Amino acid sequence: MAKKKKQSSKGVLDGIKGIANGIYRKILKKKSPELVSPLRSLANVTYNPKDGYFEILGKKKKRDLTVSTVKTFAQTLRVMALSKELVEKDDIATKREAYYVSKNWAEARFKEQPESDSVIDDVEAMMMVNREQLGFIPEEKGGEIAGKLIVIDHDLDTKKKLRIDCTKFGSGAYSIPSAVEHLKFETKAKFILAVETAGMFQRLVKHNYWKKANCILVSMGGVPTRACRRFIRRLSDSKKIPVYVFTDGDPYGYFNIYRTLKVGSGNAAHINEYFCVPHAQFIGITPDDIIDYKLPTHPLKDVDIKRAKDALKNDPFVQHYKEWQKAIKKQVGMKVRAEQQALAKHGLNFVISDYLPKKLKNKKTWLP
Amino acid sequence: MAKKKKQSSKGVLDGIKGIANGIYRKILKKKSPELVSPLRSLANVTYNPKDGYFEILGKKKKRDLTVSTVKTFAQTLRVMALSKELVEKDDIATKREAYYVSKNWAEARFKEQPESDSVIDDVEAMMMVNREQLGFIPEEKGGEIAGKLIVIDHDLDTKKKLRIDCTKFGSGAYSIPSAVEHLKFETKAKFILAVETAGMFQRLVKHNYWKKANCILVSMGGVPTRACRRFIRRLSDSKKIPVYVFTDGDPYGYFNIYRTLKVGSGNAAHINEYFCVPHAQFIGITPDDIIDYKLPTHPLKDVDIKRAKDALKNDPFVQHYKEWQKAIKKQVGMKVRAEQQALAKHGLNFVISDYLPKKLKNKKTWLP
Repeated sequence: MAKKKKQSSKGVLDGIKGIANGIYRKILKKKSPELVSPLRSLANVTYNPKDGYFEILGKKKKRDLTVSTVKTFAQTLRVMALSKELVEKDDIATKREAYYVSKNWAEARFKEQPESDSVIDDVEAMMMVNREQLGFIPEEKGGEIAGKLIVIDHDLDTKKKLRIDCTKFGSGAYSIPSAVEHLKFETKAKFILAVETAGMFQRLVKHNYWKKANCILVSMGGVPTRACRRFIRRLSDSKKIPVYVFTDGDPYGYFNIYRTLKVGSGNAAHINEYFCVPHAQFIGITPDDIIDYKLPTHPLKDVDIKRAKDALKNDPFVQHYKEWQKAIKKQVGMKVRAEQQALAKHGLNFVISDYLPKKLKNKKTWLP
Repeated sequence: MAKKKKQSSKGVLDGIKGIANGIYRKILKKKSPELVSPLRSLANVTYNPKDGYFEILGKKKKRDLTVSTVKTFAQTLRVMALSKELVEKDDIATKREAYYVSKNWAEARFKEQPESDSVIDDVEAMMMVNREQLGFIPEEKGGEIAGKLIVIDHDLDTKKKLRIDCTKFGSGAYSIPSAVEHLKFETKAKFILAVETAGMFQRLVKHNYWKKANCILVSMGGVPTRACRRFIRRLSDSKKIPVYVFTDGDPYGYFNIYRTLKVGSGNAAHINEYFCVPHAQFIGITPDDIIDYKLPTHPLKDVDIKRAKDALKNDPFVQHYKEWQKAIKKQVGMKVRAEQQALAKHGLNFVISDYLPKKLKNKKTWLP
């Protein structure tokens, strides 16, 4: 499948008009119109380490206009029209708002939000852009920044350029907006450090770790939001800086957080291209760290073990990396997990004085 | 009970030393030492509209040193010692980190985090300060700011003053730190608007609503965190500006979010004094709004109805305000709830062009 790059808003509008025109012409010819989008599932995905993300394969889903599909067909066109309006007006809508807007679409209104979400996902896949470019923003925000970075945004009325200096927020931070395509960056930082918990982030901020290490700190607050992932991706791409990920030492940290950030996820394969951070490296707590640092642990929960075994069996990312297979098998054997804050056993700031400097110096302790 | 005001770090240190000295002297006299803290429960709480928060009554919990209490007694002293160290070094620890630090306390180590959390809460109540002043910060952050506000913080190394202008974040926002006692403010805003969802906040930011309305926007992202509540409280107190709260029209929005922000909660009564925002007013979706604006609704869930009935029966805040009793009874009768984003039925920006301006003009549509 030919890859499409980030589209301008004109590109998005042209795409919507192109699809609409195709349907219009079919109808004029008295033929049944159809909508085509890629099949979104793990079965239609491949992992190619060169590109570095779960890539969608060629399987397609075709929706003909028939008696049984007429409502979804109409809804899809309505969502495309709403997207066109949003992009033209430089406005935004959450998926929840889009659902409520549909309440005025008479017979084409959505009964429940999962219906409208699914149609928005279809349109996203059909256009091969991320839905933020269609004007649809996530409900949740998330992701905070502190350190050696200047974010360039603009005043939303005057369009005047704004330089947001992330070294100037004291104990606070810069909160990433829901859509980040328009942001530009200035930085001389040596790396981006993406941290799992807000508590660890606050520790690193409190001690100005970014100053000592010449880096940019990102608080993911658990599984990173789309905006947070896209922000890290655009920043690391445009400034050519490496991304290091610091999570707990458990399958949730490895797969739900790190793997999702690095290569994306299966059920959103059509947008991984935009949201993955292929060059990310794992410098979080590994099974070896648990032993080497004698960390306090908790028993692996059943759900952890299931997650680990699923990953070994089904995850193309894990299947690609022997190092991860080895680490997971070791951890399942140890039957324990450890949190990043467990380093506090050796003193609250051991993470700053010892753990991070040693990790960063010794690539052998990383995971790919 | 005599109210204590916010304590300086010297005050906190003196308090810790005072308690420790008392115990030391008792031991020298060969008497059994004891620790006294107020009983923390709804049964030991009163609602006084003049003060405006759930206030703790005189019931106390005494912990003597006996064979069966020796471990908790030792742990309490250890936590006080940790707090002393944190305050002296101007450092912080999450409750999770404090738990891990205890792993080096030999027999006094905590087995599970709920044990250490409970001891931290006891020390907090014993000292009658909020635990952020003891150096213990919450795990989660939360709360974002945009609009007519300058936050004064300082560089954590150089101590140089930092002026953070919340009109200069473009589509982003200022993220509130975990501890906010040291912040100062400059503003000429007319009010603070605290918003339930990140999605609605992003809409108001995208359209520079704060500029038109001359206000400060706060995204609570659901139930506001301690840091977010304390930030709003300190800002509105020090600058004498009103606080308006904009939530969904459901019992969760009314009680878990608005009531918690305004008067605090029962199980944390000893700290409501610091975290409540007594002058907050409710301008969110009311049962009358659901009718007047013909909003799309969802059926009340069983948990909503239970929450509403519990509030009528047991909540001293609701028992104080006839307006709330009337509103809740009406809503339970209507059997529906509506979200703030349901206003999108009338157009995505109806909330900015109609709902908020009308609400702000007409106090009769508010709830107390």
